[in-house]
Amino acid sequence: MTKEHLFIKALKGETVDRPPVWMMRQAGRYLPEYIELRNKYDFFTRVQTPELACEITIQPVDIVGVDAAILFSDILVIPQAMGVEVQLIEHRGPILPRTITTQKDVDNLIMGDDAVASLDYVSQAIKLIKKELNNRVPLIGFAGAPFTILCYLVEGKGSKNFDVAKQFCFSQPKLAHQLLNKITDVTIAYLHEQVNAGADAIQVFDSWSGLLGQNDFNEFSLPYLNKISDSLSARVPVILFPKGSWYALQELSKSSASAIGIDWCITPKLARELTQNKKTLQGNFDPCKLLLPVSQIQKEVKEMIDAFGKDRYIANLGHGILPNIPVENAKAFVDAVKNYKSI
Amino acid sequence: MTKEHLFIKALKGETVDRPPVWMMRQAGRYLPEYIELRNKYDFFTRVQTPELACEITIQPVDIVGVDAAILFSDILVIPQAMGVEVQLIEHRGPILPRTITTQKDVDNLIMGDDAVASLDYVSQAIKLIKKELNNRVPLIGFAGAPFTILCYLVEGKGSKNFDVAKQFCFSQPKLAHQLLNKITDVTIAYLHEQVNAGADAIQVFDSWSGLLGQNDFNEFSLPYLNKISDSLSARVPVILFPKGSWYALQELSKSSASAIGIDWCITPKLARELTQNKKTLQGNFDPCKLLLPVSQIQKEVKEMIDAFGKDRYIANLGHGILPNIPVENAKAFVDAVKNYKSI
Repeated sequence: MTKEHLFIKALKGETVDRPPVWMMRQAGRYLPEYIELRNKYDFFTRVQTPELACEITIQPVDIVGVDAAILFSDILVIPQAMGVEVQLIEHRGPILPRTITTQKDVDNLIMGDDAVASLDYVSQAIKLIKKELNNRVPLIGFAGAPFTILCYLVEGKGSKNFDVAKQFCFSQPKLAHQLLNKITDVTIAYLHEQVNAGADAIQVFDSWSGLLGQNDFNEFSLPYLNKISDSLSARVPVILFPKGSWYALQELSKSSASAIGIDWCITPKLARELTQNKKTLQGNFDPCKLLLPVSQIQKEVKEMIDAFGKDRYIANLGHGILPNIPVENAKAFVDAVKNYKSI
Repeated sequence: MTKEHLFIKALKGETVDRPPVWMMRQAGRYLPEYIELRNKYDFFTRVQTPELACEITIQPVDIVGVDAAILFSDILVIPQAMGVEVQLIEHRGPILPRTITTQKDVDNLIMGDDAVASLDYVSQAIKLIKKELNNRVPLIGFAGAPFTILCYLVEGKGSKNFDVAKQFCFSQPKLAHQLLNKITDVTIAYLHEQVNAGADAIQVFDSWSGLLGQNDFNEFSLPYLNKISDSLSARVPVILFPKGSWYALQELSKSSASAIGIDWCITPKLARELTQNKKTLQGNFDPCKLLLPVSQIQKEVKEMIDAFGKDRYIANLGHGILPNIPVENAKAFVDAVKNYKSI
């Protein structure tokens, strides 16, 4: 019988000695070992070559000592699988030269097996990672949330406010829902393939949902998050991370997901109140604070865990780790959680 | 005796027949008349020439029919006055080639009369605007909040997350507070000059405070907002707009400000609860919704006013109007407020 990992226990709401810890973007640009590979292989070569994706995924487990690995990939593989070109140039945001804004654009998207089959390299990577991890820690699979994917499909690039994408939703809601449903269907099939290959949990990143007011979140984001969670949660625990959508916590606490990710703009106390302690919460250290001296990181981590409580909690950042964070500071964050004592 | 304007009545919390309305960035890039001037004169020529600033300030009063004018200027005139070069190139964000990050940088900033005297063109513009407005509507003066100005001084350019500026605050808090105090002192003197010249109310824009968690907002933003409000509010009503800092509403309701601006990510109902109806609220229409058909703008405006209540309320957007909004839609928004009936 395989041991139950701390990360899975926390997702199930079981009592633990200390919370598990991982960091969003932990496999990435703050690690010299990653930068070495980045200098040799372009982004999609790293993502699409199972051996490289495997090596990058496992780096932070070996180097920083996190309690869970997360697949090295990108949320924009879904647009690619649906037939939309994505350019990812280092140190610049993504560019989608052909945006999706008309009925014809939406009709022409690749769907079903044709879409998912093109992502077979992800299943290969997951199988390899699981073998290499050898049950040391669980592996998190992931995808972008449909609203966030729509943002890139419609806007065609990163943006501060995704005004064009939001205007598309507000002025063409019928077409927006068609597009969201298509993204959702492909995403669900893709995530099931990740679980088939061995992913132990799934996180859904709604990176831009916080640009929506509550009513609009309830219309353009929530139903699709729920659809994904409802389809996957019978197989593995699901973590929903609608960044910035603090106002949705009450509603999300009724979802089938095991956990909700939050950023630092809501206090642990209020997040607990809004979710009535029904969900595992994940977050919410401000990534900018990883530049603090180690002693202060330790102090702030202790205060964070005290505020969340050690159970039903996964220590994490409230957003991705920044490129300029020294590895020793990342390690200090992880160690501070591992050494947590409530007294 | 001069009549009391609707806008001032709402700021004072008096009972009104309908709320006043204006739009952030109403003097700007969605107006053909503005674009004509933009094609002839560069940004700082428009800002620094009283006749041009006057013409641009009054355009939306004439064309769209708003209930208040707001000085055409920029929050980055304060860095300029403190001796820091600011480049503003059309369709790109601001660039500050020499950032402020060391003790020496902070020590060398221009302060006091020397700083404020260089902004005399603003007083000239305000006097001209007041004369031209001839008491049709009141004039709002404004400045950036100290935390937001620090963001630009330290980061040197616009940014999605202002990570560099936040890391500066977190890792060098003493120096950050020195800088914030210096910005605050110059800003207060500058705003008093605006009132001396005739500004009828003052708005303080904390455009980036929403990037801070609550504790950090309480340390790096709130005290300086309060200092400004405390100094000005005996003379004119003050509106504080810490964009995205919904968590600060309870604290801000204890401030000396007359009104708090909010964006669309908090509901009117919760904003009223958190401020216990002690303050006038201003906002919070999602600017992306101005692309909706006019009939739907009318419906959404009615619902918004119903939710806030007509008293202690100033109808506005939750952020600046976007460049691609047709003038007739902006006018439809303003007219919908003007035609508001509670039944």
